[in-house]
Amino acid sequence: MIKPRFHLQRRLVEPRIQFVGQKFLDIPSIQIFNYDKRNVREFATKGDFSKIEEIVDEKSHEVTWINIHGIHDTELIRRIASKFFIDNLVIQDIVDTTQRPKIDIHPDFLYFSVKSILPSEQGNVESENISFVLKGNVLLSFQEKIGDHFEHIRGRIRENKGLVRKNGADFLLYLLLDAITGNCYSTLERMESELEELPSLIMKEPKPEYIVKLEDLKRNLFSIRKAIIPLKEAIVTTEKGQTEQIKNSTIPYFSDLKDQLLLLIDETDINLTRAEGSTNLFFSYQGHRMNEVMKVLTIVATIFIPLTFMAGIYGMNFQNMPELSWKYGYPMIWLAMILVAIVMVIYFRRKKWF
Amino acid sequence: MIKPRFHLQRRLVEPRIQFVGQKFLDIPSIQIFNYDKRNVREFATKGDFSKIEEIVDEKSHEVTWINIHGIHDTELIRRIASKFFIDNLVIQDIVDTTQRPKIDIHPDFLYFSVKSILPSEQGNVESENISFVLKGNVLLSFQEKIGDHFEHIRGRIRENKGLVRKNGADFLLYLLLDAITGNCYSTLERMESELEELPSLIMKEPKPEYIVKLEDLKRNLFSIRKAIIPLKEAIVTTEKGQTEQIKNSTIPYFSDLKDQLLLLIDETDINLTRAEGSTNLFFSYQGHRMNEVMKVLTIVATIFIPLTFMAGIYGMNFQNMPELSWKYGYPMIWLAMILVAIVMVIYFRRKKWF
Amino acid sequence: MIKPRFHLQRRLVEPRIQFVGQKFLDIPSIQIFNYDKRNVREFATKGDFSKIEEIVDEKSHEVTWINIHGIHDTELIRRIASKFFIDNLVIQDIVDTTQRPKIDIHPDFLYFSVKSILPSEQGNVESENISFVLKGNVLLSFQEKIGDHFEHIRGRIRENKGLVRKNGADFLLYLLLDAITGNCYSTLERMESELEELPSLIMKEPKPEYIVKLEDLKRNLFSIRKAIIPLKEAIVTTEKGQTEQIKNSTIPYFSDLKDQLLLLIDETDINLTRAEGSTNLFFSYQGHRMNEVMKVLTIVATIFIPLTFMAGIYGMNFQNMPELSWKYGYPMIWLAMILVAIVMVIYFRRKKWF
Amino acid sequence: MIKPRFHLQRRLVEPRIQFVGQKFLDIPSIQIFNYDKRNVREFATKGDFSKIEEIVDEKSHEVTWINIHGIHDTELIRRIASKFFIDNLVIQDIVDTTQRPKIDIHPDFLYFSVKSILPSEQGNVESENISFVLKGNVLLSFQEKIGDHFEHIRGRIRENKGLVRKNGADFLLYLLLDAITGNCYSTLERMESELEELPSLIMKEPKPEYIVKLEDLKRNLFSIRKAIIPLKEAIVTTEKGQTEQIKNSTIPYFSDLKDQLLLLIDETDINLTRAEGSTNLFFSYQGHRMNEVMKVLTIVATIFIPLTFMAGIYGMNFQNMPELSWKYGYPMIWLAMILVAIVMVIYFRRKKWF
Amino acid sequence: MIKPRFHLQRRLVEPRIQFVGQKFLDIPSIQIFNYDKRNVREFATKGDFSKIEEIVDEKSHEVTWINIHGIHDTELIRRIASKFFIDNLVIQDIVDTTQRPKIDIHPDFLYFSVKSILPSEQGNVESENISFVLKGNVLLSFQEKIGDHFEHIRGRIRENKGLVRKNGADFLLYLLLDAITGNCYSTLERMESELEELPSLIMKEPKPEYIVKLEDLKRNLFSIRKAIIPLKEAIVTTEKGQTEQIKNSTIPYFSDLKDQLLLLIDETDINLTRAEGSTNLFFSYQGHRMNEVMKVLTIVATIFIPLTFMAGIYGMNFQNMPELSWKYGYPMIWLAMILVAIVMVIYFRRKKWF
Ligand SMILES: [Mg+2]
Ligand SMILES: [Mg+2]
Ligand SMILES: [Mg+2]
Ligand SMILES: [Mg+2]
Ligand SMILES: [Mg+2]
Ligand SMILES: [Mg+2]
Ligand SMILES: [Mg+2]
Ligand SMILES: [Mg+2]
Ligand SMILES: [Mg+2]
Ligand SMILES: [Mg+2]
Ligand SMILES: [Mg+2]
Ligand SMILES: [Mg+2]
Ligand SMILES: [Mg+2]
Ligand SMILES: [Mg+2]
Ligand SMILES: [Mg+2]
Ligand SMILES: [Mg+2]
Ligand SMILES: [Mg+2]
Ligand SMILES: [Mg+2]
Ligand SMILES: [Mg+2]
Ligand SMILES: [Mg+2]
Ligand SMILES: [Mg+2]
Ligand SMILES: [Mg+2]
Ligand SMILES: [Mg+2]
Ligand SMILES: [Mg+2]
Ligand SMILES: [Mg+2]
Ligand SMILES: [Mg+2]
Ligand SMILES: [Mg+2]
Ligand SMILES: [Mg+2]
Ligand SMILES: [Mg+2]
Ligand SMILES: [Mg+2]
Ligand SMILES: [Mg+2]
Repeated sequence: MIKPRFHLQRRLVEPRIQFVGQKFLDIPSIQIFNYDKRNVREFATKGDFSKIEEIVDEKSHEVTWINIHGIHDTELIRRIASKFFIDNLVIQDIVDTTQRPKIDIHPDFLYFSVKSILPSEQGNVESENISFVLKGNVLLSFQEKIGDHFEHIRGRIRENKGLVRKNGADFLLYLLLDAITGNCYSTLERMESELEELPSLIMKEPKPEYIVKLEDLKRNLFSIRKAIIPLKEAIVTTEKGQTEQIKNSTIPYFSDLKDQLLLLIDETDINLTRAEGSTNLFFSYQGHRMNEVMKVLTIVATIFIPLTFMAGIYGMNFQNMPELSWKYGYPMIWLAMILVAIVMVIYFRRKKWF
Repeated sequence: MIKPRFHLQRRLVEPRIQFVGQKFLDIPSIQIFNYDKRNVREFATKGDFSKIEEIVDEKSHEVTWINIHGIHDTELIRRIASKFFIDNLVIQDIVDTTQRPKIDIHPDFLYFSVKSILPSEQGNVESENISFVLKGNVLLSFQEKIGDHFEHIRGRIRENKGLVRKNGADFLLYLLLDAITGNCYSTLERMESELEELPSLIMKEPKPEYIVKLEDLKRNLFSIRKAIIPLKEAIVTTEKGQTEQIKNSTIPYFSDLKDQLLLLIDETDINLTRAEGSTNLFFSYQGHRMNEVMKVLTIVATIFIPLTFMAGIYGMNFQNMPELSWKYGYPMIWLAMILVAIVMVIYFRRKKWF
Repeated sequence: MIKPRFHLQRRLVEPRIQFVGQKFLDIPSIQIFNYDKRNVREFATKGDFSKIEEIVDEKSHEVTWINIHGIHDTELIRRIASKFFIDNLVIQDIVDTTQRPKIDIHPDFLYFSVKSILPSEQGNVESENISFVLKGNVLLSFQEKIGDHFEHIRGRIRENKGLVRKNGADFLLYLLLDAITGNCYSTLERMESELEELPSLIMKEPKPEYIVKLEDLKRNLFSIRKAIIPLKEAIVTTEKGQTEQIKNSTIPYFSDLKDQLLLLIDETDINLTRAEGSTNLFFSYQGHRMNEVMKVLTIVATIFIPLTFMAGIYGMNFQNMPELSWKYGYPMIWLAMILVAIVMVIYFRRKKWF
Repeated sequence: MIKPRFHLQRRLVEPRIQFVGQKFLDIPSIQIFNYDKRNVREFATKGDFSKIEEIVDEKSHEVTWINIHGIHDTELIRRIASKFFIDNLVIQDIVDTTQRPKIDIHPDFLYFSVKSILPSEQGNVESENISFVLKGNVLLSFQEKIGDHFEHIRGRIRENKGLVRKNGADFLLYLLLDAITGNCYSTLERMESELEELPSLIMKEPKPEYIVKLEDLKRNLFSIRKAIIPLKEAIVTTEKGQTEQIKNSTIPYFSDLKDQLLLLIDETDINLTRAEGSTNLFFSYQGHRMNEVMKVLTIVATIFIPLTFMAGIYGMNFQNMPELSWKYGYPMIWLAMILVAIVMVIYFRRKKWF
Repeated sequence: MIKPRFHLQRRLVEPRIQFVGQKFLDIPSIQIFNYDKRNVREFATKGDFSKIEEIVDEKSHEVTWINIHGIHDTELIRRIASKFFIDNLVIQDIVDTTQRPKIDIHPDFLYFSVKSILPSEQGNVESENISFVLKGNVLLSFQEKIGDHFEHIRGRIRENKGLVRKNGADFLLYLLLDAITGNCYSTLERMESELEELPSLIMKEPKPEYIVKLEDLKRNLFSIRKAIIPLKEAIVTTEKGQTEQIKNSTIPYFSDLKDQLLLLIDETDINLTRAEGSTNLFFSYQGHRMNEVMKVLTIVATIFIPLTFMAGIYGMNFQNMPELSWKYGYPMIWLAMILVAIVMVIYFRRKKWF
C-alpha cells in the first residue's frame, strides 16, 4: 500500500527544516555530473561532503546534475540548498516525504515534487518522494533511498548517447521525469495483470481474501491517480511556458510527458472499472454457490422427507392397521414411494433445477 | 477488450523513434492518390519504397493522400516524415499505438491521433490507432494493419463522386474521420444489441458468466468513452478555427463530426446505464431463485416433519400405549395428520407462498 | 424506451442528403399559415407539392409558418430548403432523426433541433425529432410523423387568441418549443406515477419484473435528461441575445422556457432518486421474505427434529429397554416432549422470532 | 414528500396568467405595512380589495410591505401587479407554485422566487412557493397559504425593535428570506433526529419499512438540496451588487444569508451520507439475522439428524440383528449417541458458531 | 461525531449578537501578548475584564495577540470587537459556532473562521469553531473552550524561538492556522489506524457493529472534508495577495498551508475508499459465513436423510416383508447405507464442498 508516512514528527510550529518520513539510508550519498557536448566529469561521495561546495559551480556554462540520496540528513540538504539560495520553505518541502506532487515557480528557480511509484517486493506498491530544483544550468535531485531509477540516463550521459549531452539541464529534468513516468507504467501493468487473474480465481472459489486483494488494488489505483493528477497539473504549467527555466525548445518534450500522464490516468480509471467489475463478479458468484448448495439440500430433503413419513406411517404399532396384513402391502408402499419420488423429480426437472 | 499494448518496449530514455505496439503486418505498404477536380492518379507499392520521394510532390496544386499501412517499419515512417519536415516527437507519436487521441497544432502542419474502434471476430471490441498529418495539400495517414476503413472513400475519389474531388486535403481528412466515427457507431450498436439480449437470458438462469459479460461490456463502453472524449476535444479545437490547415469552408463539416461524437458519448452513457440495470436485475433474480428454492424446502419440510413426528410417536414400543389398541386409533391418527397438513397448507396459502 | 434509430443507413461518406430514421408516413404533407394582426391564410397539401414555391413568399411582411410532416422525403425537404438558401449540412441534420438537440446560429437563419418526448401506448416513452428553421418572418418546422403537438396553437392563430398574431415568427417558435416542453412534463408525470406505485407492489411481492421496470424507468429518465440538457444549453444561447433572429422582446419568453427546462431536469433527478430508492426497497424486501421463510423452517424443524429423535429412541427394538415396560413410560415421554417443545418456544420467543 | 404540484393545469399555450398549484385558501387576504423610522401604519383586508389601490402609494418615502395570501386569485394578483408595472411573465411565475427558486433582475424591480420548507403534521416535509417583488421602497410578498412564517417580523415592525424600521424595503426582504432559511434549518434538524433514531431501530429488527422511511428521507433531502442551490445562486447574484434595488449597505446581510445556505447544503450532504450509512446497516443486519437463523437450524439439524438415523437403525425389524439382543445394547447406543452429539458440539464450538 | 450545534437558538430575526452553540466554560478568560523583536509582555485575566481596553493599544508598533476563551459571553465579545470597529455581522459570526469555515475581507481587517478537528475521548471526533480577526498589528482569536491548541506557540513567543517574534501578526495567524491543520492530521491518523484494524476484525466475525463503526467513520471523514475544503478556498484567497493584511513575505507560508490542506483532502478521500472497501469486505465475509453454514447443513442432511429413509423402510411392520427374514438382510442394509454415504461424500468432494 502507498502508505503515507506523515505519522512521524508532523507538528511543525514553523518552517524549520525537519525530516518527515521514514529513514531508509544510514549514510547519505551524492553523485555529481558536469557535462557539455564535449566533456563529462563525474564525482561521487558517501558520508564525507567536505568538498561539495568546491566542485559545484553554478556559473559554469556546463550542465551540473547533483543527485542526493538520503534526505533525512537535513543539515546536508540545507548546506547544499543554501549554496543555491533556496529558501527554507522549499528545503522543508524537500525533506518532507509526504509532500503532494507540485511545481513551485520561484523567481530564479523551479521546484518540482514528484511521487515515484514502483511495485514492491511483497506484491504491493511503493511510493517514493523525489524532488527537483532546476536553476539555470544546475539540476538538483533529492531521493529518499538508493534506487536504480536513473541508471540508464547516467549511462547515456557518460557515453554521449542521444540528445542529453546536446541539451541543457531542463532537458535532463525531462528525462528524469520521463523515467519516473515509465516506472508508473510498469506498476500499473503489474496491477492490471493481477486484476486480469482475479475473475477466474473468483469463479473457482469466491474466497473473501479476493475482496481484500481487490480493495487493496482499488485503493492503490486511487492513490496513484491522486499522485498523477497534480503532477499532470504541474507539467501543464511548464507546458504553457510560464517559466523561463524551461527553454522553448524543451517544451514539446514536456507536452509529450503530459500525453503520457493523461494516458496513465485513463489506464488507472479503466483498471478501477475492472476492479469494480470483479467485485460484482465475486458477489454474484457467491450467490450462485449459495443457490447451488440450497438446491441440492432442497431436492434431497423434498424427495426423502415425504418418503420417510410414509415409511413412518407403516412403522406405527396400532393393533388395527389393515394394510399391514395385505398380501401386497409392502410392494404397494414401494410403488407409492417410487411414484412420489418420480413426481418430485419431474417437478424439479420442469423447474430446471437440475 | 480494448487492450492497451504499451506493455511492450515502453521505457524510452528520450524520444528516439521506436515502435510501441503489436506488429500486424510483415511488409508495409503505401497507397498514394493525386487528384484535383479533373484528374486522379493512383500509385501503390508494397515492400519496395525506393521511388516514393519522386512521386510525392508537396508543392503541387493537387491534393496528395499518402496512406501507409504498417507503422512498425520506423525507418520507412521516418523517411516519409522527414520529407515533410515532421519532427521526431511527432514521428514517435505516430509509431506509438498506445497514443491517446489528440490534435497537435504545429506551425505548418496538423497532427491528429485517433482510435478506430471496431467489433472483433470473437465478439469483442478492437481498437486501432490511426494518425494523420495534414500539411497544405498533402494528407498522410498511418495505419497499423490493412483494414477496409476507407475503401468506399477511395472509390469516390476514383469515380469523382460527391464533393471529395472538389475540395482540398482538409475535406479528405474530414471524410476519413467521419468513416472512423461510423465504425464506432457500428461497434456501439453491436454492444447495445448484446446488452438488450441479456435481461431475458438472466431471467432464464442467472449464470455468473453474465456478470463477466456485463463487466466486460461496461469496461469496453468505458474505454470507448475515454477514446471519444479527447477526439471530441481535438475537433472542438479545429472547429474554433484555431488552425489554418483547416479552411473556413471545411469547418462546418468538422462541427457536424462533433455533433456525432457528442451523440456517441450520450449513447455510451445510456448503454452504461443499461449494463448497470442488468447487473441489478442479475442480483434480484438470483435472490428470487433463492427465495423460490427455500420456499419449496420450507413448505415440504414444515408439512412433513410434524407428520413424521406423529408417526414416530405411534412407532414407539412402550408396552402401555392405550391408543394403539383403540379400535379407531389408526383412522384417527390419519385424520389428525390430514388436519395438521390442511392447517399448514392454509397457513402457507394465507402467507401467499404458493 | 427512447430507442435511437441510427442503426439504419448510417455510413455517410459525405453530407449528401440521406434520411436516417424510421419511416412513419407514406405520403408527406405540408401546412402553411400566413398571418399578421388582421389576416390569416391557411394552405394544406398532401402528396402534391407543385405549388409550394408560389405560396411561400419570404419577402412578405406577414409571418409564414411552414409545417412539414414526413422528413423521409428528402427530395421535398431539399426543394423547400433550397428556396430559403439552407445549406446541405443543415438539411442532413433535418432528415437525421438521431440528431442531438442543438442550436446552430447561421448568418441569416437559426436552426433548432429538439426531441419531443411523449408517453407511448405500451406504457413506454417515445421520442420524436423535430427541427425548426427560423429565417426572418418565416418559420419552418419539420416532423417525422403526424402528431397533435401543435393543434392548440393552430387554433389560436385561426381565432386570433392571445399574443401569437401580434408577434413575429420568433414568438411562434417559442410557442412551439413551449408545447414540446409541456409534452415532456406529461411524460415525466406519468413516469412519476408509475414510480409512486412500485413500492407498494414490491412490498406485496418482490417480483424481478419490478427490477426490469425500474431499470427501464431509470434508463428512460436518464435519456430524457440527456435530451433536455443540450436543449437548455441551446436556449441559454438565444437568451443571451447572441442571435438577431430572436427579437429582444421575445427573449424573456425564452428565459421562461429555460426555467421550465431547469425544473424538468430537477424533476428527472428526483425521480431517478426515487427509482434508486425502490431498487433498495426491492432488495431489502427480498431479504426480508427470505428471513421470514427461513424462520418458519427453522422454528418447525428445530422443534420437531429433537422430538422425532426422542420418538425414534423408543421405537428401537432392543430387547432390554427398561423404560418401555415402565407403567408411566408413555405419559412420561409425552411430558418430556412437551417440555422440550415449550423450552424451544420460549427460546424463540426470547429471540423475538415470532 | 415535497410533492410538485405541476400536474394540474400545466399546458400553457402562452403566458396568460393561470394558477398552477393546489388551492389552499378560499378567500385571499392582504396585509399592508407602511413605515419609516417614526411612524407605522397597518392595513388588512380579506375578500374585499376595493380600496387597495388607494392605500398603496409607490411614490411615498415610506417603506411599504404588501403581503398577499392566496395566489390562486389571479385576477387580484394581476390588479396589484399592474399597479407596479410588473409584466405578465413575472405574474405567471408568481402564480406558478412549481416555480424553481430564482432571481430575475428587471430594469426597475427585482423578482425573487423561493421555496419555504417546513415539517408537515404527518412527519413529512412540506414545501411552499413564496415570491417577492422588490421595487424601490415597496416590497410585495406572495404566499400560497396563511402560515406564521413572518409573524415575529411583523411584531418587530410594530414595536420598532431592531434595525428593521431604520432600513429600507431591501432590508425587510433580507429579514423575510432569513426567516425562510430558518424554517429550512428546523426541517433539517427534524430529519436529522429521525435519521439518528434509525440505526438502533434497525438493529432491533430490520423491517423493510425502515428502508421506505430511509428512501423517503433521502429523496426529501435531495429535494431540499435542489431547492437551496438555486436560491444560493440567486443570493450570490445580489451579493455581487449587480442590482440597484439592493443597497450597498444591505449586501453584507445577503452575504450572511449565503453563508447560512452553504451550511445548509453541507448539512444536507452529511445527512444524505447518514441515510446511506443506515441503508448499509440495514442490509448488514438483515444478513446477520439470516446467519443467526441459519446457524440455529444447522446446529439443531446437524446434531439430531444423525442421532435420529441411529435410532432408526435399531428400529428396523430384521429378524437377525445381533445388537438388539446384546445385554448392554441399549446403553451402548445411548453412549454412541451422546458421543456423536459431543463431537458435533465441539466441532461447532471450534467454528465459533456459539 | 462532528455534531452541528445549531439546534439551539437559531431563529435570528436580524443580526443582533446571539450565541449559537453549546456553552463549555463558565467564566471566559483572555490572554494578551504584546511583543516585538526585543520585548514581550503577557497579560491574562479570567472573569474581570475591566482593564482590557487600557492594555490593548491598536496603534502600537508591537504585535498584539488577544486570545479569548468563551465566546458565549456575547457582551464581552462585543466590547472587545467594538474597540476594533468590527461590525455586528462579523461579531455574530464569531459567536456562532456552527459557522462554516470562510474568509471575509473587510476594508481594514480580515476575518477567518476555522474548524479545529480533534479526536475526542470516546474515540470520536470533536470539532471546535475558532475565529480570527487580523487588523494590522493586532490578531484576535476566539475559542469556545480552553484547549491546548496553541501552547507550544506561546512558548516560542516567550522564549523568542524561531521566526515568530521577528514577524508580524499575519505570521502569527499562519502559525495558529498551522497548529489547527496539525490537529487535523492527528485526527485523520487515528481514524486511519481504526480503519486499518477493521478488515481483520471483520474476518474474525462480521458483526453489524462494524458497519455502524464504518458508517460513523465515513460520515466523520466526509464532515472533515466539508470543513477543510472551504478553509483551503479561504487560504487560496489570501495566497493570491488579494488582501493587504497579509504581507507579501508571509504569503509563501500560506501557500505551504494550502499544500498541507490539499494533502489532507487526498488522505480523507483515500480513507473513504478504505472504508468503502471494508464495507464490501463485510458483506462478502457475511456471505461467506452463510455459505459455510449452509454447506455443513446440506452435507449432513443430504447424507443422513436418505439413510434415515432406508432405516424407516425396514422399520415398517408389514407382515409380508421378505427382506426382514433374509439371513444377511441386516448386514446388506448396512452395506447399502455405507455405499450411499460414500457416493454422497464423493459427490461433495467433486463439487469441492469440503
Ligand atoms: Mg493513508
Ligand atoms: Mg495515504
Ligand atoms: Mg489508454
Ligand atoms: Mg486504455
Ligand atoms: Mg460494477
Ligand atoms: Mg454495481
Ligand atoms: Mg488496460
Ligand atoms: Mg486499456
Ligand atoms: Mg441506445
Ligand atoms: Mg442519444
Ligand atoms: Mg447496480
Ligand atoms: Mg438509447
Ligand atoms: Mg439515444
Ligand atoms: Mg423539483
Ligand atoms: Mg443501481
Ligand atoms: Mg438509494
Ligand atoms: Mg419539484
Ligand atoms: Mg418534485
Ligand atoms: Mg416529483
Ligand atoms: Mg456543516
Ligand atoms: Mg445504496
Ligand atoms: Mg455513511
Ligand atoms: Mg454503500
Ligand atoms: Mg453496499
Ligand atoms: Mg454542521
Ligand atoms: Mg448534522
Ligand atoms: Mg454535521
Ligand atoms: Mg497521501
Ligand atoms: Mg495520500
Ligand atoms: Mg466498492
Ligand atoms: Mg461498497
